[in-house]
Amino acid sequence: MNTPSTPRLYHIPLSPYCRKVRLVLGEKRIDVELVEERWWEAGSEILRRNPAGKIPVLRMDGRLWSESQAIVEYLDETHPNPALMPDTPAGRHEVRRLCAWFDDKFNEEVTRPILSERVWKKVMKAGYPDSRLVKSGLRAVKEHIDYLGSLLDERKWLAGNALTLADFTAAAHLSCLDYISDVDWDRSNSLKDWYATVKSRPAFRSVLADQVSGLAPAPHYAELDF
Amino acid sequence: MNTPSTPRLYHIPLSPYCRKVRLVLGEKRIDVELVEERWWEAGSEILRRNPAGKIPVLRMDGRLWSESQAIVEYLDETHPNPALMPDTPAGRHEVRRLCAWFDDKFNEEVTRPILSERVWKKVMKAGYPDSRLVKSGLRAVKEHIDYLGSLLDERKWLAGNALTLADFTAAAHLSCLDYISDVDWDRSNSLKDWYATVKSRPAFRSVLADQVSGLAPAPHYAELDF
Ligand SMILES: N[C@@H](CCC(=O)N[C@@H](CS)C(=O)NCC(=O)O)C(=O)O
Ligand SMILES: N[C@@H](CCC(=O)N[C@@H](CS)C(=O)NCC(=O)O)C(=O)O
Repeated sequence: MNTPSTPRLYHIPLSPYCRKVRLVLGEKRIDVELVEERWWEAGSEILRRNPAGKIPVLRMDGRLWSESQAIVEYLDETHPNPALMPDTPAGRHEVRRLCAWFDDKFNEEVTRPILSERVWKKVMKAGYPDSRLVKSGLRAVKEHIDYLGSLLDERKWLAGNALTLADFTAAAHLSCLDYISDVDWDRSNSLKDWYATVKSRPAFRSVLADQVSGLAPAPHYAELDF
Repeated sequence: MNTPSTPRLYHIPLSPYCRKVRLVLGEKRIDVELVEERWWEAGSEILRRNPAGKIPVLRMDGRLWSESQAIVEYLDETHPNPALMPDTPAGRHEVRRLCAWFDDKFNEEVTRPILSERVWKKVMKAGYPDSRLVKSGLRAVKEHIDYLGSLLDERKWLAGNALTLADFTAAAHLSCLDYISDVDWDRSNSLKDWYATVKSRPAFRSVLADQVSGLAPAPHYAELDF
């Protein structure tokens, strides 16, 4: 008899898309084996796993799944306990809008410029950070903090009154920046309180234990009281 | 008594994200008033409609909706006839994976470099096209055609045996490129046949009638037999 094998996630530690999937797996208490996929190194087999050449890729239910948002929607549909999507179309729209806010806009304006200059160039030995890109990311993050803070002044969670995929998508991006200390939490108390709450969930433990070799996390990174 | 007003879509003609929403509205026979939102011109009120500053924005059911993928999922949930999502979680994953393929990967490698250099710089009077970017887009589009062709050798529609949101997302991107004649349809018969079928749907009429001032469409652009 075949026992279903443990799901396996091909990932890298400071990727917001991989973290989103890890957090949702954790919240749903699905055990997963993490396998680091350094797709930029010779010998990476990423293209055999995903024709788009991107991580995360999840091996589960006998298949390979790619694209983080498509994966977490699949996980929410197949493991509805706890549900991470609201039960109205308008509620689900708001969750998806905010996930796209992070995966498209926040990534382009903040996560990508900052991480590629301050982390990936170092890890991939690809030269020195371009300080203009870093600065533009640090400028943009302020506006984002203000917008998220204004949402959280009115709402308990990012997309409304329940914890959803939007909170984990947001936390996936923000936690990558927080690793290198690039979030000014003092700018918004409501955002800081929200992050402290998300960070204290058991699903966050694996993410808080991440270590990128040659790049120690900020001292407060794994602290629940920061 | 209040009669519900006609939905209104803030858009621009050659935007793949706006086209995706237009095509899905058309397929579901939802009448819509199109309003051009030239967000780069002084006086644009886009930020009042969408804090992300992006189009498409749809006014419908008494609210403003943004983010194309979140919008089309909302439309599919609230107007399920015809359904544009499969009825299994794995089927829906495949649709969402392919939508993300276009909105993330294809956009970054093909649609954005080609359109921003060959269309937007002209429309926005922002200088001359950078031919390296155009060339890299034209190189990448070949690999994408081969991948899509290989999918369509096995499947009737892009995500399987039924017409879904993935077909309209793909057609939204490809039709923008086809306007300026940048798709080599002879490279894959199965892709060409698929595009001819999608293009002949009534939903496509409005998109085929688009005209960008100062930039005439390729002669075959609106022809169903191309
Ligand atoms: N839309 C994808 C984005 C994933 C993504 O961009 N992953 C990066 C790592 S953070 C990657 O694999 N990049 C490799 C490449 O683009 O070739 C998703 O949501 O899964
Ligand atoms: N993720 C968005 C992307 C929309 C998008 O990038 N729209 C472009 C026009 S094609 C835009 O409004 N750009 C203005 C800006 O980024 O400031 C969606 O799917 O709706």
